[in-house]
Amino acid sequence: MTRIDNRKSDQLRKWQFIPGFQRHPLASVLSVSGNTRVICAVSLEKSVPRWMKEQEVPGGWITAEYQMLPSSTGTRGERESTKGRISGRSAEIQRLVGRSLRAVVDLSKLPGLTLHVDCDVIDADGGTRCASISGASLALQIAAQKLLDDGVITENPIIARVAAVSVGLLEGNVLLDLCYTEDSAADVDMNIVMTDKGRFVEIQGSGEEATFSEKQMMEMIKVAKHGLIEIFALQDKALKQK
Amino acid sequence: MTRIDNRKSDQLRKWQFIPGFQRHPLASVLSVSGNTRVICAVSLEKSVPRWMKEQEVPGGWITAEYQMLPSSTGTRGERESTKGRISGRSAEIQRLVGRSLRAVVDLSKLPGLTLHVDCDVIDADGGTRCASISGASLALQIAAQKLLDDGVITENPIIARVAAVSVGLLEGNVLLDLCYTEDSAADVDMNIVMTDKGRFVEIQGSGEEATFSEKQMMEMIKVAKHGLIEIFALQDKALKQK
Amino acid sequence: MTRIDNRKSDQLRKWQFIPGFQRHPLASVLSVSGNTRVICAVSLEKSVPRWMKEQEVPGGWITAEYQMLPSSTGTRGERESTKGRISGRSAEIQRLVGRSLRAVVDLSKLPGLTLHVDCDVIDADGGTRCASISGASLALQIAAQKLLDDGVITENPIIARVAAVSVGLLEGNVLLDLCYTEDSAADVDMNIVMTDKGRFVEIQGSGEEATFSEKQMMEMIKVAKHGLIEIFALQDKALKQK
Amino acid sequence: MTRIDNRKSDQLRKWQFIPGFQRHPLASVLSVSGNTRVICAVSLEKSVPRWMKEQEVPGGWITAEYQMLPSSTGTRGERESTKGRISGRSAEIQRLVGRSLRAVVDLSKLPGLTLHVDCDVIDADGGTRCASISGASLALQIAAQKLLDDGVITENPIIARVAAVSVGLLEGNVLLDLCYTEDSAADVDMNIVMTDKGRFVEIQGSGEEATFSEKQMMEMIKVAKHGLIEIFALQDKALKQK
Amino acid sequence: MTRIDNRKSDQLRKWQFIPGFQRHPLASVLSVSGNTRVICAVSLEKSVPRWMKEQEVPGGWITAEYQMLPSSTGTRGERESTKGRISGRSAEIQRLVGRSLRAVVDLSKLPGLTLHVDCDVIDADGGTRCASISGASLALQIAAQKLLDDGVITENPIIARVAAVSVGLLEGNVLLDLCYTEDSAADVDMNIVMTDKGRFVEIQGSGEEATFSEKQMMEMIKVAKHGLIEIFALQDKALKQK
Amino acid sequence: MTRIDNRKSDQLRKWQFIPGFQRHPLASVLSVSGNTRVICAVSLEKSVPRWMKEQEVPGGWITAEYQMLPSSTGTRGERESTKGRISGRSAEIQRLVGRSLRAVVDLSKLPGLTLHVDCDVIDADGGTRCASISGASLALQIAAQKLLDDGVITENPIIARVAAVSVGLLEGNVLLDLCYTEDSAADVDMNIVMTDKGRFVEIQGSGEEATFSEKQMMEMIKVAKHGLIEIFALQDKALKQK
Repeated sequence: MTRIDNRKSDQLRKWQFIPGFQRHPLASVLSVSGNTRVICAVSLEKSVPRWMKEQEVPGGWITAEYQMLPSSTGTRGERESTKGRISGRSAEIQRLVGRSLRAVVDLSKLPGLTLHVDCDVIDADGGTRCASISGASLALQIAAQKLLDDGVITENPIIARVAAVSVGLLEGNVLLDLCYTEDSAADVDMNIVMTDKGRFVEIQGSGEEATFSEKQMMEMIKVAKHGLIEIFALQDKALKQK
Repeated sequence: MTRIDNRKSDQLRKWQFIPGFQRHPLASVLSVSGNTRVICAVSLEKSVPRWMKEQEVPGGWITAEYQMLPSSTGTRGERESTKGRISGRSAEIQRLVGRSLRAVVDLSKLPGLTLHVDCDVIDADGGTRCASISGASLALQIAAQKLLDDGVITENPIIARVAAVSVGLLEGNVLLDLCYTEDSAADVDMNIVMTDKGRFVEIQGSGEEATFSEKQMMEMIKVAKHGLIEIFALQDKALKQK
Repeated sequence: MTRIDNRKSDQLRKWQFIPGFQRHPLASVLSVSGNTRVICAVSLEKSVPRWMKEQEVPGGWITAEYQMLPSSTGTRGERESTKGRISGRSAEIQRLVGRSLRAVVDLSKLPGLTLHVDCDVIDADGGTRCASISGASLALQIAAQKLLDDGVITENPIIARVAAVSVGLLEGNVLLDLCYTEDSAADVDMNIVMTDKGRFVEIQGSGEEATFSEKQMMEMIKVAKHGLIEIFALQDKALKQK
Repeated sequence: MTRIDNRKSDQLRKWQFIPGFQRHPLASVLSVSGNTRVICAVSLEKSVPRWMKEQEVPGGWITAEYQMLPSSTGTRGERESTKGRISGRSAEIQRLVGRSLRAVVDLSKLPGLTLHVDCDVIDADGGTRCASISGASLALQIAAQKLLDDGVITENPIIARVAAVSVGLLEGNVLLDLCYTEDSAADVDMNIVMTDKGRFVEIQGSGEEATFSEKQMMEMIKVAKHGLIEIFALQDKALKQK
Repeated sequence: MTRIDNRKSDQLRKWQFIPGFQRHPLASVLSVSGNTRVICAVSLEKSVPRWMKEQEVPGGWITAEYQMLPSSTGTRGERESTKGRISGRSAEIQRLVGRSLRAVVDLSKLPGLTLHVDCDVIDADGGTRCASISGASLALQIAAQKLLDDGVITENPIIARVAAVSVGLLEGNVLLDLCYTEDSAADVDMNIVMTDKGRFVEIQGSGEEATFSEKQMMEMIKVAKHGLIEIFALQDKALKQK
Repeated sequence: MTRIDNRKSDQLRKWQFIPGFQRHPLASVLSVSGNTRVICAVSLEKSVPRWMKEQEVPGGWITAEYQMLPSSTGTRGERESTKGRISGRSAEIQRLVGRSLRAVVDLSKLPGLTLHVDCDVIDADGGTRCASISGASLALQIAAQKLLDDGVITENPIIARVAAVSVGLLEGNVLLDLCYTEDSAADVDMNIVMTDKGRFVEIQGSGEEATFSEKQMMEMIKVAKHGLIEIFALQDKALKQK
């Protein structure tokens, strides 16, 4: 099967992580996967949510927000602040990003601190949640290092790095890292979030117009793992160049 | 490992589907899983969303909403209408319910019609999204039959029935159908949505405070499939008794 | 005049109060009047609203919320949380419920406590505000007893029980306890809230398309009082069976 | 019992209706009752709400909105547009005003038209809902006459005029037309809406901290009727002077 | 060029300031400019916004809100509280009013106090923001004097008085104090806010459908200054008569 | 006076316009002024607002939205979509951007079309509204050319290009193009919007804590015009390189 951009079925798009993208936050990474671009920023707040203060063991918190610029999509999207509410899709994605990051952080090592992760999509061409998670995890690692360097925290809270990639079923073929056109046509769309140690963090497989067998699921996971190895290598490269 | 309610690790709670629960909707099922109770109702609207009208091939639509009564939880939850916005959690769940149902319905056989699925949680004790999906799928089948009987549609749009169950990892053990106490303590929480034909519709595995291996994932899926067979049988039983 | 359900003009529908309907709240009563069903729950919060804290004499507070499930009406109603605001009708009703309950409670005997009363309509067939008040008053009494038993409060704050019933004018006839069809056709619709000691708490008489004379008002009140005696007896019965 | 402003128990405050208060609306009346002042305006919209268009018999509609200026009360009130929502109290009152006016208008004589009634409180000293209804009814009559004069409608839709007054129980005394201080202290607060033909439109009696007997209710109604006769005379006077 | 109301091009409409318009606020001025009428009220709150409390030097705050009554315009405007949000136009104007007042007040002389300025438009016929600023400045001066008299503050915080007037370009002519009809037709609309000492506070010149030269700008400013002298005299007159 | 970044008082920061920044919109320019960066995008909608459709002469419309990324400021800003409302500051700025652009466009040459201008701030260091206007005007010109090239419109609607720059008074000195630190300290802040033909579009001068004389205003305008010439040259350069 020939893909729209001539990639092989198990081939990633061109991914790239550009640290230091913004001026103010603790850490800011421009996360690029093909034509998709997401700004992933980590900001520090020296307090925690109220429900957390009431807990016995003092800890920290990590929360994420996700939004697409109105101009990031083919047809302009209405601005969520103009509508006065976050879309269900954004809510779903930002919860996924937050959970994925918290799964690999020891919150007890961020006492009294909240890290706000903002994922703002500049250009959308499929896979924005995966680019968000992969870029945010890198930004989080950079931010944690800065907090250590500045003496704000004394132990590194990062247990592992995470990355995510999409994989789908289109006309019976397993395709890695779907662009928007492929994503729209796919029968099944799966997002795999893993750690750089090969463990799963989140698996979200969903068949909008179709269902899938266990065998197909296993094939998709296999292809995804293949792609994730490459993405972790690109995160490493970005860290070293920083 | 002894469970809080003395169940075996791969044992379902007591599930039950009670059709005809409400007076007005096309179909209404009280979906019971242990101490969790959800009203699943299907209502007909003789029109489709605007974006659908503009599409080439005329079809129908299925959309879901999910909400917990403030009194359904241990600590009273603030009412979403009072807050003026749907929580991210509700948004995430109602999107999951909607997708799961649409995956097993041929929307072209509901021309110009929208089916609204309302999942309202009366009592929450873990697994409300699974009870919602499982009850809603049954209600949808009953609703479709009523539309056929009334001549509103001419072909049955239901391709398959779906059900969902949770499975988790707690202290290394794979547990089926977590109650709230287990769910809060679990390292990994997985929701499996399948069809009565043994195919996957959605898989959502998430480690809030931990990660999981592929082997663990496969074990969880295996246990979940075991539970789902039982749930499909209970749906069948409820249909026959109706 | 023959009524739609063959009742006599001064005959109540079948009313029933089912305590213990939900698992979590302090008290939960399913309040049934004919085809109308409302869940009335009382939950405890160990704090009071800010404006109350600033008052000289420390006391407690009782507040009510009312909502209809979208699936509770003949034509599905849009969910208030989806619209992002409470309808004027819900606001009006929940204020009535709250006032009615506070009128028969000695708030000084609930020091520092708020009781949240949630009235959620499962099936609507007229008279939902009356079923709400009548069920909520019973739930409140059960909740107060539980707080006394648990030593949370030391004196019973309940001064009296309240109940409510509707009465209307339709083609010149005074009808007790209107169902939805009668309510829609009635010229005048009156809701009478009384205590079990025969005193008035609220009277709301309203002629949407007509006006009424003092003589008609007195007749309506007389018939309502007749019905309320029966409702108080059913509350008593439910309390004893609990 | 000596009243705060030396009135007799059955004595109205100084009421006054000043037509032509604003420049733009069809009709605008400044309604004054003691220190309470409300602007009541009627504006024309040449269309009806969507639900009305779908009805068999074409008619018109009357709807009311009520708001207090932040500066109208002793302690400044937060602006509802700043809070982003209408308070429950405002919702309750504007529904009462709308119902009261529709009860005395033949909507079929306003085909395809909506009359918007705006009641904006400039100074609040108790009885704002009564001043709103009494002023709005007068403004409505003026507006209807203007529509007749302009040939927009061909028949007068006004069946009767309405007015409203409050009456309360304070330390066992029945007091007419409560000012804010009396209102805050009263055990029972009743608002009576009547037509100039002596028929009831709405009765709202409510005991926030007390209940009341039928005998007390009858006494309150008697005193209210006395006051309403005077208010209707003031409406007449304002109409003639216009 | 003949103006719609026969004024000369550099002639003000009839302006008037009526202090003591409302009963409750610290100060209340009805600000009249031609057919435009705005209630300007100043209310005291004995606290400051949170961000201010965190600042080193303790001071006070002045904030303004602006709103048009729905009935104040030719075509009835939808109520902002009903829409659930403040319009961009109102937001822009109330920010302008607040800035203009703060520029002439020494906030350090209002320690721990907030003055809320409410500008509510009763009748709109052009120039509502100028009438708001000019009336609010007068109300502020009266309020400050009352706070001094009452010993709430010890030094007068008012540095100068401000007033504002509009001036525009219509068919090449510079016109002072535009009414609504002129404002709608004008190519350029400028609002000049000055102190009674002849210094500028705000200049907002805007060409909706045209641009303007520096020479035209200077002419407009000259004419505006001419009008402002008259407005300051009217403020003085109102202060003396009070 | 030495500036924080060693600029001369009448020296611009380094400005740059980078066209083609995003993939999907008609035109997208990254507008850079010193450390401030704003994405300015123009998107096409083939319809006009409802109020425009009802007008006699058919035309087009241009509207702007402005938002800061939460991560664009020194202290993270709360996301407006999370708060559920646009801030007053954003409302004020996006109205300014829209007006500035419409002043130099012949809307009759965009029949039935709306151009949405989105200004999203990536990095804020003062002057974001000026960078927005200057970048948006360039993007608008590119967009208009594309519409001409594609035959969507037949005549160029662009009458002139606009640009904006800030100028302020700090300790008696007139400073061009304030960075955030200077802006916070300035007594007067003026934003000048001009066309490339030397005419004014908007002038907004505001003294938050001070007032200014006519002489100071003229000096500020003179310095601003000097800077604007340079900005127009950079727009030209960007157009040619495109």
